[in-house]
Amino acid sequence: MKATILNIGDEILIGQIINTNSAFISKALNNIGIEVNEILSISDNKKSIINSISRVEKNSEIIIITGGLGPTKDDLTKITLCEYFNDELVLYPDVLNHIEEMFKKYVSTPINEKNRKQAFLPKKAKIYLNNYGTASGMLFKKNKNLFFSLPGVPHEMKMLLNDSVIPELKSKFSLPYIYHKTLLTYGLGESVISKRIESWENNLPENIKLAYLPGLGRVRLRLSSKGVDKKKVIDSVDKQVKKLIPLIDDIYFGDEPSEPLEKIVALNLKKLKKTLSIAESCTGGRLSSRFVEHPGASSFFMGGVVVYSNSSKHNILGLSKKLINKNGSVSSYVSEAMALSVKKKFNSDFGISITGNAGPDIGDLTKKIGSVFIGIATPSIVKSFNYQFGKNREQIIEKSTNKALELLYKEIKSK
Amino acid sequence: MKATILNIGDEILIGQIINTNSAFISKALNNIGIEVNEILSISDNKKSIINSISRVEKNSEIIIITGGLGPTKDDLTKITLCEYFNDELVLYPDVLNHIEEMFKKYVSTPINEKNRKQAFLPKKAKIYLNNYGTASGMLFKKNKNLFFSLPGVPHEMKMLLNDSVIPELKSKFSLPYIYHKTLLTYGLGESVISKRIESWENNLPENIKLAYLPGLGRVRLRLSSKGVDKKKVIDSVDKQVKKLIPLIDDIYFGDEPSEPLEKIVALNLKKLKKTLSIAESCTGGRLSSRFVEHPGASSFFMGGVVVYSNSSKHNILGLSKKLINKNGSVSSYVSEAMALSVKKKFNSDFGISITGNAGPDIGDLTKKIGSVFIGIATPSIVKSFNYQFGKNREQIIEKSTNKALELLYKEIKSK
Repeated sequence: MKATILNIGDEILIGQIINTNSAFISKALNNIGIEVNEILSISDNKKSIINSISRVEKNSEIIIITGGLGPTKDDLTKITLCEYFNDELVLYPDVLNHIEEMFKKYVSTPINEKNRKQAFLPKKAKIYLNNYGTASGMLFKKNKNLFFSLPGVPHEMKMLLNDSVIPELKSKFSLPYIYHKTLLTYGLGESVISKRIESWENNLPENIKLAYLPGLGRVRLRLSSKGVDKKKVIDSVDKQVKKLIPLIDDIYFGDEPSEPLEKIVALNLKKLKKTLSIAESCTGGRLSSRFVEHPGASSFFMGGVVVYSNSSKHNILGLSKKLINKNGSVSSYVSEAMALSVKKKFNSDFGISITGNAGPDIGDLTKKIGSVFIGIATPSIVKSFNYQFGKNREQIIEKSTNKALELLYKEIKSK
Repeated sequence: MKATILNIGDEILIGQIINTNSAFISKALNNIGIEVNEILSISDNKKSIINSISRVEKNSEIIIITGGLGPTKDDLTKITLCEYFNDELVLYPDVLNHIEEMFKKYVSTPINEKNRKQAFLPKKAKIYLNNYGTASGMLFKKNKNLFFSLPGVPHEMKMLLNDSVIPELKSKFSLPYIYHKTLLTYGLGESVISKRIESWENNLPENIKLAYLPGLGRVRLRLSSKGVDKKKVIDSVDKQVKKLIPLIDDIYFGDEPSEPLEKIVALNLKKLKKTLSIAESCTGGRLSSRFVEHPGASSFFMGGVVVYSNSSKHNILGLSKKLINKNGSVSSYVSEAMALSVKKKFNSDFGISITGNAGPDIGDLTKKIGSVFIGIATPSIVKSFNYQFGKNREQIIEKSTNKALELLYKEIKSK
């Protein structure tokens, strides 16, 4: 069973919004065994809509259309679909009633004729009430194809997808099981990994597909398979994962979607009943904010400092001005002193520090752009590591943050 | 001049990643006067790639392809394009040299044959070196069409787009000017707004398009136009905006910023020659890291503290334990004391603080989830503001960060 997602809206084509709807829909369809063939975003105009539908209905049994269902002039989806399916708009009294109720509840103004128009819907379509808005979901059938039309506003779309579309599809079809397993690795590039696991990869069974997903400082390896027997599908993938892990033992950090690295570090710290504090310079607080994004940070995260200027390294953390000047603020000395000092100030078991030159100007720093020192103070020792993270500011910040997490993980894993 | 964006990669179709590349490309193309017809995401397989290209080349002069250029087995774009354009792979010595240099600089391992293969590129294509990776950008020409193939890794794609594709397109074509102006409104639904501005909308000139973009509690109104004469295009839209604003005066909040808010705040601080320091609790460093993401932060950003625990509010910022206990850590008192203390510690002109309960547990905090206090210490006074930001942790953190930026902006704008 194949699906196409068709997003209607100029805001996508001009880059005004990022299309998050499609990822949500794809994931939900995959979860019930439906593969997405194609995701297509087009303009709010009749011709594009009709051309696209008439094309994609040849390749996909299921077409999920989003957007263009609002009450304003630029919303053309409903009228266009009505035309395409030779349908006519009629008043649905229960929809009108629902819209009136919503206005009573949430809006101070009475409904106007634009809202009333939203209760006029295609006669032959199946209608799904929208609990979060005034645009109903619709289902059109033509030959073997199902066409769902949903609003583009994300929380309205998600509600209708989860509560109406997915149950409808599950009840209509007997669907296979699709399984993805993604392994996170840090520290090696995809070419090196693929070389290393080459013979394993070449011996993968036909029904298992491997993908490499490179990112900043990490590569994700995704194994995908599908079949009617859920247990068999999972077992066949897991069998291959078991063979793969020993080959990547030194760079393997865990599985996705399970957890981002900071959550794994957090979990380990909690297990050890150890606490952490953070001193950041060039990353400006990103490492700290990563930990705080997740609930429960207060049980191990004592806090941090962002000592962006040299004077703050001295004033806040008490580093010697003389030694900062002698070594430079991007140095092994400063990174170790930052880690030790923040650990002491926050009275934590571990202290970690990042100091580097993120560019684009060399400024008063003596080290070249992309040079980053990471310091770790443990209950017993302090050490530092030096890296070169290229020239792009955003990359230097993100790679430094990920590397600090990786180093910390390795440090506490060995405890 | 029309363009199609073609993303190749199963990770998009299974919803594993959100397609941010396309929004970036669309915006960049719009900026130079090229409209995007269609954004299409397809699977990593030869047939899909060839079918899609042969279809979209009929509707668009420019096709921007992303993804599938890596060194691993699942990367099929280069070989498929080579086949489609009847080209052959040959060694580009300068590309090989570039890859070798990159490995010398950033990777400890020597290059392997998979990397070497990336220096084999289509003979007739124009090749663009990738400063951030080993996959080159390519330009194929066929009849009146230009096909650019770029890597899917976002920072590599962005670099090649900005440094190679956009200059190439600008040099090749005389392009019109596309102008979008987006007005932010809060407090009324789109149907009510559209009713209110109906007669204005009906009298819009043919070449100006209006779109309604509804969201949580807000509606954005976008006016778009294009033409060869930049000044005329801008003037014609601005003339309509001037007529529109009085009609929505009570709900109009401003124009959608071209720059992120922290950059606007930074610019204003630099203009005023004033400095800033930040004390964060529930946002965990996100506000600080927002400022540091942009170059030049050192000229106004003195640094910050993440005082996540009550003890750190006392130990690091010197807040009275008694008063923290009396008022609660989420309180007007604590937010103001944090702002004042961090301003003093970092010797800055402004201090800003955020303290709140981001949930999901109430913990030992006395204020309910979503309650956030933001404190601002200026050179002359200190004040605080209280908000309720719902129940979702990520939303509370993000909304707190944005609100702090907005308050700071209003504060320094009035100076």
